[in-house]
Amino acid sequence: MTTAPGTFNPRKPMTPDGQTYHGDHAYAFYQIPVDARKLPIVMWHGAGQFSKTWETTADGREGFQNIFLRRHYGVYLIDQPRRGDAGRSMVETTIKPTPDEQLWFNQFRIGLWPNYFNGVQVAQDAQTREQFFRAMTPNTGPFDMGVVSDGVSALFDKIGPGILFTHSQGGGPGWLTAIKNEKVKAIVAFEPGSSFVFAEGEVPEAIPSAFDTVQGAAVPMEQFMALTRIPILILYGDNIPERAVDLPAQDSWRARLKMARLWRDAVNRHGGDVRLIHLPEIGIKGNTHFPMSDLNNVQIADLVSQFLKEKQLD
Amino acid sequence: MTTAPGTFNPRKPMTPDGQTYHGDHAYAFYQIPVDARKLPIVMWHGAGQFSKTWETTADGREGFQNIFLRRHYGVYLIDQPRRGDAGRSMVETTIKPTPDEQLWFNQFRIGLWPNYFNGVQVAQDAQTREQFFRAMTPNTGPFDMGVVSDGVSALFDKIGPGILFTHSQGGGPGWLTAIKNEKVKAIVAFEPGSSFVFAEGEVPEAIPSAFDTVQGAAVPMEQFMALTRIPILILYGDNIPERAVDLPAQDSWRARLKMARLWRDAVNRHGGDVRLIHLPEIGIKGNTHFPMSDLNNVQIADLVSQFLKEKQLD
Repeated sequence: MTTAPGTFNPRKPMTPDGQTYHGDHAYAFYQIPVDARKLPIVMWHGAGQFSKTWETTADGREGFQNIFLRRHYGVYLIDQPRRGDAGRSMVETTIKPTPDEQLWFNQFRIGLWPNYFNGVQVAQDAQTREQFFRAMTPNTGPFDMGVVSDGVSALFDKIGPGILFTHSQGGGPGWLTAIKNEKVKAIVAFEPGSSFVFAEGEVPEAIPSAFDTVQGAAVPMEQFMALTRIPILILYGDNIPERAVDLPAQDSWRARLKMARLWRDAVNRHGGDVRLIHLPEIGIKGNTHFPMSDLNNVQIADLVSQFLKEKQLD
Repeated sequence: MTTAPGTFNPRKPMTPDGQTYHGDHAYAFYQIPVDARKLPIVMWHGAGQFSKTWETTADGREGFQNIFLRRHYGVYLIDQPRRGDAGRSMVETTIKPTPDEQLWFNQFRIGLWPNYFNGVQVAQDAQTREQFFRAMTPNTGPFDMGVVSDGVSALFDKIGPGILFTHSQGGGPGWLTAIKNEKVKAIVAFEPGSSFVFAEGEVPEAIPSAFDTVQGAAVPMEQFMALTRIPILILYGDNIPERAVDLPAQDSWRARLKMARLWRDAVNRHGGDVRLIHLPEIGIKGNTHFPMSDLNNVQIADLVSQFLKEKQLD
């Protein structure tokens, strides 16, 4: 919250003098079912996305919001600070409508524009594609890992213990939220992006890709150890090459998956409980960057439910 | 939708060449209850607001979303184009965090900052006030009556006949939506703002106020007549002076209420069915600019339910 210098004059209301401004909060929409399980699930979107990630899918099926409500979990959907309904940013920004949808089509591993991957778990009609493109909304302020993790941590302070689902760019600040707030009792990270935190002195070499360079971030050992105290499940979908390719979209995910494996090993080496599932390795094929809304999202939900049951979080 | 000139190169994904951009759509979150009534209700926010207007109140009670769901209406909550989750604007804009909350406190007729009006239907604790201030989100593109009414009209095309609730700034484009789309079967307008449409040649004199000048807009008679074919209920709350005062916040509402009465008379003169209720006149006191979330919002909902029943819309 900021206050402009001066004194508010009700006869000059358009002048900021003495007026306040609240911002950089997260926004959450929640539903608690009858006979709810003990721990609710907080679902956090990725880059360019908002709560819609978890709502009805682009082709009109139920998403993880309804699927997990039906499974008797309370469900909180977040818009992180400076995104969507949490648009009131404390930092000025300019939003430009720059055409970028073919970038996302490829980056989200739906295919190689204009072609879909063979067997991809996505409906291929024009209306679905349009709905998918429209399920984006811009940042209304600079993306800031500290601000967004503070916002989500404040939500956990308000609602108490819960399970955190993150997607993509939400992965990195998701780890920070668990470090900040012990009310985060487990994390299920869908295709976490480039930001993984390691203990100081243990950050692995950066991994270059045709898109960018994936570089681990260092935190004090004490903070890192917080991540060893909760069960963590990480899922990655299909069409991620194991060897370097010159296509930025796919190669970026090769580098991210590689860093995620190093991170799993680092956390587990310190006594943690991280499981990483690359879905094709267990026979689940065709998933994009959005396993929670792909055609087989009930199968993915089953996998997650099984994990929550195994960890006695259900 | 726009397409940048050139050809998309998947090896240069950050270049807009040949890429597309979809925007200026509305976003809607909906729930349809078991045994739903025939017509759903579409709820449209006002200036600076989003779907939250109708969700839980700043002091944590149920809002019109849940109240009308419990009364077996399907409920659609809108974020209009260029607001909240519908942030993908086709026009560039800069968002500045300009302190303005004391303006809104007064403009929304909660009181005269820092004092609350006597008997105002609002909880007066600090946490409620903070939640109320945080329930705002900026425009991500210029406010455009045509764009936002097109977006909401597209929603009615998709969902079929329904009842439209509007709030404040949503009032003006709400009339335009009903003109554009005969699937709008009734309108309940909560404190409509400054924009009222009259038939060409019948626009009344502008009404100056200490805040701004309220000026009716002209549309062809054929369009105006669309507004005579549906039942319309308009509600205004308390603390609106009948005579000019030198406080911009309150005087602006004097001018708007006066124009609303002229508009009611104009539509009804052409065979329309507009009812305007100034709540204090029927003994309901203390309402702010947000009757749908004020402490007596169940009483307000009862008034609306009675109207819908009387018009056989329930």
